[in-house]
Amino acid sequence: MIKVTIIALGKLKEKYLSDAVKEYSKRLSRYADLNIIELEPVRLNEKPSPAEITAALQKESEMIFKKIPQGSFVCSLCVEGKALSSEDLADKTKELSAMGKNITFVIGSSYGLSESVKKASDMRLSMSAMTFPHQLFRVMLLEQIYRAFKINEGSTYHK
Amino acid sequence: MIKVTIIALGKLKEKYLSDAVKEYSKRLSRYADLNIIELEPVRLNEKPSPAEITAALQKESEMIFKKIPQGSFVCSLCVEGKALSSEDLADKTKELSAMGKNITFVIGSSYGLSESVKKASDMRLSMSAMTFPHQLFRVMLLEQIYRAFKINEGSTYHK
Repeated sequence: MIKVTIIALGKLKEKYLSDAVKEYSKRLSRYADLNIIELEPVRLNEKPSPAEITAALQKESEMIFKKIPQGSFVCSLCVEGKALSSEDLADKTKELSAMGKNITFVIGSSYGLSESVKKASDMRLSMSAMTFPHQLFRVMLLEQIYRAFKINEGSTYHK
Repeated sequence: MIKVTIIALGKLKEKYLSDAVKEYSKRLSRYADLNIIELEPVRLNEKPSPAEITAALQKESEMIFKKIPQGSFVCSLCVEGKALSSEDLADKTKELSAMGKNITFVIGSSYGLSESVKKASDMRLSMSAMTFPHQLFRVMLLEQIYRAFKINEGSTYHK
């Protein structure tokens, strides 16, 4: 069974979103060995300077690197990444499964991810040109991973 | 206060998603007079033919047209639409508000929207190259509308 790791900065606070994450995690457990790692973002004041943001992202990237499983394919989520369709993501998942590779998705804090994380990634994925709250974003990502497995199974769920 | 109408095919079934819609609707009520109109999609069997799908979309489009408020700016959500950033959507909302225009967003069923609805729209908006379940999609759209008002207010929510 393929290992899917999600490294996410920030906690889920809203009950309806943590319920959604629970539901998709349960559904995904049929297809993948899912591990969600929540990291605490560096605290910043209301209007941080660019230097403060860069320093925070750098600190966060060190925490992220420690959590990426060895040999895993790393996909970082960023607005300037490649816009894949659900079918494209399903193809990528199938290809990695066939190679015996595990996948790690990295979701940054509200200020995104450091350049070092982006550069160390095997793929940069953009789910939308729009910015979503990281909590809702986690639900959206889980749904797409679940959908990828359903598409590869030939199920009609994705219709 | 600007009127925002969302015409959506299909019901919300999952409690966590209807809770999310409730929450964003409440937040949005400070900025807009929100009206969500749920329409019943035409029932299709598991593997409908292209002709059956076209006929269903046509029937749905008639229901949609009846619900669009007169003179409203119509934005239909479709994967092949224009990918706007959250800031772009905020600009559009500001522009329409200034013109005294109301906005209607149309979310289709799992088979999308008919060509007639798309052609009758003032804008086609793509939130993602990926396909999302219409229930989750409604939450995503509400969040973006709320975010647009927050951006226009100059709030820091969108950071």
